[in-house]
Amino acid sequence: MIEDFNDTIVAPATASGVSAIAVIRLSGKEAISICNKIFKGKDLSIQPTHTIHFGTIRDGERIIDEVLVSLFKGPKSFTKEDVIEISTHGSPFIVKQILQLLIRNGARSAKPGEFTKRAFLNGQFDLAQAEAVADLIASDSEASHQAAMSQMRGGFSSEIKMLREKLVHFASMIELELDFSEEDVEFADRTQLKNLIFEIRKLIAALIISFDLGNVIKNGVPTVIAGKPNAGKSTLLNTLLNEEKAIVSHIAGTTRDMIEDELSIEGIIFRFIDTAGLRETTDTIESIGVERSRKKILEAALLLYVFDLSEIKKPEDYDDQLAEVKSYGVPFIMVGNKSDHCSDMVWQYLQGNENVILIGAKQKHNIDGLKNKLLEMVNASKISTGGTIVTNIRHYESLLNTRESLDKVLSGIDLNITGDFLAQDIRKALMHLGEITGEITTDDLLGNIFSKFCIGK
Amino acid sequence: MIEDFNDTIVAPATASGVSAIAVIRLSGKEAISICNKIFKGKDLSIQPTHTIHFGTIRDGERIIDEVLVSLFKGPKSFTKEDVIEISTHGSPFIVKQILQLLIRNGARSAKPGEFTKRAFLNGQFDLAQAEAVADLIASDSEASHQAAMSQMRGGFSSEIKMLREKLVHFASMIELELDFSEEDVEFADRTQLKNLIFEIRKLIAALIISFDLGNVIKNGVPTVIAGKPNAGKSTLLNTLLNEEKAIVSHIAGTTRDMIEDELSIEGIIFRFIDTAGLRETTDTIESIGVERSRKKILEAALLLYVFDLSEIKKPEDYDDQLAEVKSYGVPFIMVGNKSDHCSDMVWQYLQGNENVILIGAKQKHNIDGLKNKLLEMVNASKISTGGTIVTNIRHYESLLNTRESLDKVLSGIDLNITGDFLAQDIRKALMHLGEITGEITTDDLLGNIFSKFCIGK
Repeated sequence: MIEDFNDTIVAPATASGVSAIAVIRLSGKEAISICNKIFKGKDLSIQPTHTIHFGTIRDGERIIDEVLVSLFKGPKSFTKEDVIEISTHGSPFIVKQILQLLIRNGARSAKPGEFTKRAFLNGQFDLAQAEAVADLIASDSEASHQAAMSQMRGGFSSEIKMLREKLVHFASMIELELDFSEEDVEFADRTQLKNLIFEIRKLIAALIISFDLGNVIKNGVPTVIAGKPNAGKSTLLNTLLNEEKAIVSHIAGTTRDMIEDELSIEGIIFRFIDTAGLRETTDTIESIGVERSRKKILEAALLLYVFDLSEIKKPEDYDDQLAEVKSYGVPFIMVGNKSDHCSDMVWQYLQGNENVILIGAKQKHNIDGLKNKLLEMVNASKISTGGTIVTNIRHYESLLNTRESLDKVLSGIDLNITGDFLAQDIRKALMHLGEITGEITTDDLLGNIFSKFCIGK
Repeated sequence: MIEDFNDTIVAPATASGVSAIAVIRLSGKEAISICNKIFKGKDLSIQPTHTIHFGTIRDGERIIDEVLVSLFKGPKSFTKEDVIEISTHGSPFIVKQILQLLIRNGARSAKPGEFTKRAFLNGQFDLAQAEAVADLIASDSEASHQAAMSQMRGGFSSEIKMLREKLVHFASMIELELDFSEEDVEFADRTQLKNLIFEIRKLIAALIISFDLGNVIKNGVPTVIAGKPNAGKSTLLNTLLNEEKAIVSHIAGTTRDMIEDELSIEGIIFRFIDTAGLRETTDTIESIGVERSRKKILEAALLLYVFDLSEIKKPEDYDDQLAEVKSYGVPFIMVGNKSDHCSDMVWQYLQGNENVILIGAKQKHNIDGLKNKLLEMVNASKISTGGTIVTNIRHYESLLNTRESLDKVLSGIDLNITGDFLAQDIRKALMHLGEITGEITTDDLLGNIFSKFCIGK
C-alpha cells in the first residue's frame, strides 16, 4: 500500500563541499510539477521514468545553473513516490540557491532519514532493512559493510519472518481452542508447540550471541597487548602495524601511554592497545601507567600476552605467567616472543599448546600465524545463524524480549496453564519479533530510528 | 572534432563524506564495457543514452552496493565521450571499494580537471568557458555566481570572438598586400584599420577596467571604516551588519583591533574593516592600532569616513576633515553621523554634496541611502561591456598584451611602416586574444589551468 503523503520533500543528497557535482533530491506527489516550474528544458511530466534531461534551473530570468535532472516515476523509485534528482555543479552556494527556490515553489525541507522513512512506510523494505541502509553508509570496514549489505538485502529479515510465521500458526491454533473452551479440546499439540519453541529459541539464542560478533564487526575488537617489561610488546605492535608508532627502546618502562591503532585482518578491525609493562615499579608516573594497564586488560575483548622466550628457563616460568594471565578472566593468546632465543626444551613444552603462539616480532617471524590465531579467536564466537549477524542494539533487545516471552510459554506449558495465558505470551513474542522488521511500530520508535539518519537519505 | 583518448578515466564526482548518495564518474571509450564487467543488471551497452539503471556492483560474488547507473553516450555527454555515473550509497568506504574495482578493471584515476579538459579538447566549449566552470563551483555570492554563469554560457567568449573575426579580416587583407608588394597596392585601407583598432581598443579597455570590478565581485570590496574617536564607526558597523560584533562604548579608543565582517548588498560583497580611531594618542598599544589603521586605509578599495555632525560647528570643521580624507587618495564616502544633532547651517552646507551622506547610525536613519551610495561607488567602475566582466587574471593579462600589440599597430600605421611589420603585430594581438578562448594553447597552459580544478570535474 502506498501511504498518502501530502508534502513533497527536498534535501541535498550528496556531502556538502566544493566538488564536481552535487545532487538535490525531491520526493512526493508534486516533485515533478515543482521541478517543472524552475526547470527550463523538456516538460518533465511527459517524460518516461528513469531518464535524464539537460536544462537550466531559473529563478525568473536569472539562470542559477545548468543541470541534469533524473526522473523516477513512482512506484519505480526509492520512496515509491515520484522522485527527482537534480545534478548541479558542486557549489554549496548553488545548492543553497536551488534548495531555497524549490522551497519557495512548494517543497518542504526533508527531516533526517525522511526519504528512507517514506520508502519503509510505502513498503519498499522492512524496518531492519531500512536500518541497514544507515549502517551501510556508516560502514568503514569490509566486515561491517558485508553485515549491513546482507541485512539490507533481507538476510536478517527473512530469518525473523520465518520464525514469526511458525509462531503465528501456533498462536492461531491456541486461539481457536479458546473459541471452543467449553469443550476442552486441544487443537495445538503441546508437545509440538514445545518442540517448535525449542527450535525457535535455539535460532534466537544464536542471533543473540551473534550480537557480540556484530558489535566487534561494527566497532572493532579491543585487543590489549600486555606482558612484562622488555618482552617486546611495542615491537610486536610496530610489526603488526608496519609503522613506527610506539617508541621502542631497550630501557624497561619506555611505554607509559596507551597507544591505540587499528589493523584490519580479513575485514575484522582489531583495535590494539599497547600498555605499560606489567611490573612492580617505584617510579610514580609509571606505576599509574601499570594501574591503567590492568584496567585496560579487564575491559578488553582479547588479551595478547607477550612473554620473552629467552627468559623461560623451565616450564614453571611459563606456568606462572599463564596463571597470572588466566586470572584476568579475559580471552587470551600467549605470545612467546624472541623465538630465535628459545631453548629446545621450552619449544617442546610450548609447541602445540592451544593458547600459545611462538613468534619473532623483530624478525617478523610467524606474524601470519599470530594473525590467523587472532581471527580464530573472533570466529570462535561466530555461531551458525546462516551467516546472519545482529549488529543493531535495538534488534538485540527485541530478541532478548522475544526469548523471555518464549521462556514464559515454555514454563506455561509445563505448568499446564490455560490456552488464553499461553496465547498472551505467544502474542508478546510475536510483537517483539515484529518490532525488528517494523510490522509492529510506534511513531516514537520510527522517529527515533530515522532521526539518526543523515539529511537527504 | 573528437580527440582520441585511449584511457578511460574515473573519479568520485561528489564531495567526500558520509551522505545519502555519492557519485562516481567514468569517461572514455571503455566506460560502458568496464562498468558492464562489475555491474549486475541490464546490459548497459545496448541501453539508450540518458537512461538510468538499477543493479548491483559486484567484486566476483561479493556485492559492494546496490546502485543506480546513469548512461550518457558520446557525443551527448559532458566530455563528448561515453560517460557513466554510478550513484552509490554515500559511504566513503563503498566509494573507495568501487573506485579500486573500476581501476582493476581497466579505468585510470582521473587527474584534477581532466573531465573538463577532455570536454574542452573535444570542442564542448572554449577555454574561457571551461575556466568559468571552476569559477562557478567556487562562487559564493550572487555576483560572483552570475559572472561565472555568464562566462560559462559564452558571454565573454562571444565578445572576444567578434573582436578576433574583425581583426582576422584586416590581417588577411594586409597579408594579401604582401603578395603584391612589388605593385605597392593597399588592400587594407589604413584609415579603416585605424578606426577598427580604435573600436577594438575601446572594448578591450572596457574589459580591462571591468577586471577591477570582477576582482571585487570575486573577492569582495575591502572597505575601511575610519574617522575620529567616538564618531560612531563601530555603531555604524553594527548597524550595517545587524549584530553586536564590535564593542561599542562611549570611551574614546575602545576599538583597537581590526574587525572584519562581510555584508552582501545586491550580490556585491563588502568586506568591512573597522579601525581604531584616527587621533594622536599617548597610549602605546592604541598608537599601534592607529598606525595600522592608516595602513589599512591605503590598502582599501573604499573608505567610509565617519564624522560626528554635532562636532561640525562651521564649514571649515568639515573642510579640514575632507582635506585629510582626500590626502589618502582612496575612493571615499564622507559619512556624517548623528544626523539628529546636526545644525541647520551645517545640514545646508553638506546636503547635496556628492561625496557626503548624512545618517543616524544608532537610530538606523538613512542606512539604505548609505547602502545605495556604496553600490553606486562600485558600479561607477562598471563600464559598458555588454555586461561582461573579466574575473580571471589570465584573461586580464591576455587583454593587456592584446592592447599593447594593438598600440604597436596604431603607431606603426602613423609611422607608415610596411605591411609585413603591421601584419606581425596584428598576428600577435590575435594570438593573445586566442589565448583567452583557447584557440591558441600550449600543454603547459592547459596543465596549469586544469590542475586547479577539483578531482572528478
